Amino acid sequence: MTMKNIKPIDTLSLVDKVEIRLLEFFKNNNLKPGDPIPKELEFSESLGVSRTVIREALLRLRTLGLVESKKHRGMVLTEPDIINNFARILDPTLLGTGILKNLFELRLILEMGMADFLFERKTQKDLDDLEEIVVKEEEQESDQSHFSLDKEIAFHGKLYQISNNKTLQGFQQLLLPVFEYVHLKNTPQDFKHRYSSGHFVTHRMLMDNIKIGTPETFRNAMRHHLEPHFDSIFKEK
Amino acid sequence: MTMKNIKPIDTLSLVDKVEIRLLEFFKNNNLKPGDPIPKELEFSESLGVSRTVIREALLRLRTLGLVESKKHRGMVLTEPDIINNFARILDPTLLGTGILKNLFELRLILEMGMADFLFERKTQKDLDDLEEIVVKEEEQESDQSHFSLDKEIAFHGKLYQISNNKTLQGFQQLLLPVFEYVHLKNTPQDFKHRYSSGHFVTHRMLMDNIKIGTPETFRNAMRHHLEPHFDSIFKEK
Repeated sequence: MTMKNIKPIDTLSLVDKVEIRLLEFFKNNNLKPGDPIPKELEFSESLGVSRTVIREALLRLRTLGLVESKKHRGMVLTEPDIINNFARILDPTLLGTGILKNLFELRLILEMGMADFLFERKTQKDLDDLEEIVVKEEEQESDQSHFSLDKEIAFHGKLYQISNNKTLQGFQQLLLPVFEYVHLKNTPQDFKHRYSSGHFVTHRMLMDNIKIGTPETFRNAMRHHLEPHFDSIFKEK
Repeated sequence: MTMKNIKPIDTLSLVDKVEIRLLEFFKNNNLKPGDPIPKELEFSESLGVSRTVIREALLRLRTLGLVESKKHRGMVLTEPDIINNFARILDPTLLGTGILKNLFELRLILEMGMADFLFERKTQKDLDDLEEIVVKEEEQESDQSHFSLDKEIAFHGKLYQISNNKTLQGFQQLLLPVFEYVHLKNTPQDFKHRYSSGHFVTHRMLMDNIKIGTPETFRNAMRHHLEPHFDSIFKEK
């Protein structure tokens, strides 16, 4: 007996369907952020569903930041705030370990990939800020050679900032608690050992690279700098 | 006159505040995906707001995929589906040009940064698939040297797949319509010109690199491959 010709049962709720229909409507009518949308009653009549269903679907779109209510104008389309939307769901305590691992890998990918933007957009002010960050951490670390999360965040956060892509920076802000969470699960001993293994690229070396190197030399330096993280991911298998 | 001591007016709505309070509650009580949460009435009494307000805040969390209703169990926490959440707001026709530009840059960053994952996780099957993709596009392009979006998606999509990070793959799926949108705005002549400029790294060259190169040689090859895109971004200023 073949099950080829049996169609799966449609499990979408009425509100799900209306949500999809509304998004299609905006798109097909080429509506842009700022444009007003039809009223609840009009949608209700055209789609043949109750106003309650329309209201719930519109509420969802409002939650997602796709529409908003304007005084005297009814509802208008808004440009969704990607980062803010992400922020609300990205609490690492609410995420499973699978996705945490994925997000941690994503961080490595972003930092390996941003070199060209760093070099294209760096300013003298950026280099001065970076120098200050490095000098400060060198003063603090004279007695302790091990990994400190605050120092990591100050330095790497500045790199995201220099790359000057608002979406990228937003991601980094969001991902910070995730990184923190992952770091807390790593044993400090483990990191200490790896960080004192001799051929380690320091923040100062990365900075010098940004000052006088090229995107290519920087990527190679960053790869060495991130070695302990790559190791811990690739060894796990 | 100094304005230092005047506090900004709190513009959050009651539902906004309840949403934040609920998320804090989950976190402080260390609730995990699958755990049941208190009932509407209990929240209403503890927070001293109406059940309608609680209901609307919970509806928002349901829209974001943070809670769901289970038969006979009331509401439980769920692991948010980051990618699905993103998908609903990432329609390029609803996004402004600023964020489209940012997302396009993000694509370049991801593809420059994924090399180590490609090399660590590639399988013989992956290389065979890639060979098939490249051969097929070479057959088609014999007469036309210009840029084709389908070919780009087949090849680059496979690279994301080889990197084997579900979140990264999800992003790529989501960002596809954004890339398409950006490409449509580029003049084909412009691309044709750049693509025939002589020192261009083809998909076959990238593939050979994955087969016998290193992450380092691959990154340099990919940088050359993406040159027209980097050029168009950095020239724009």
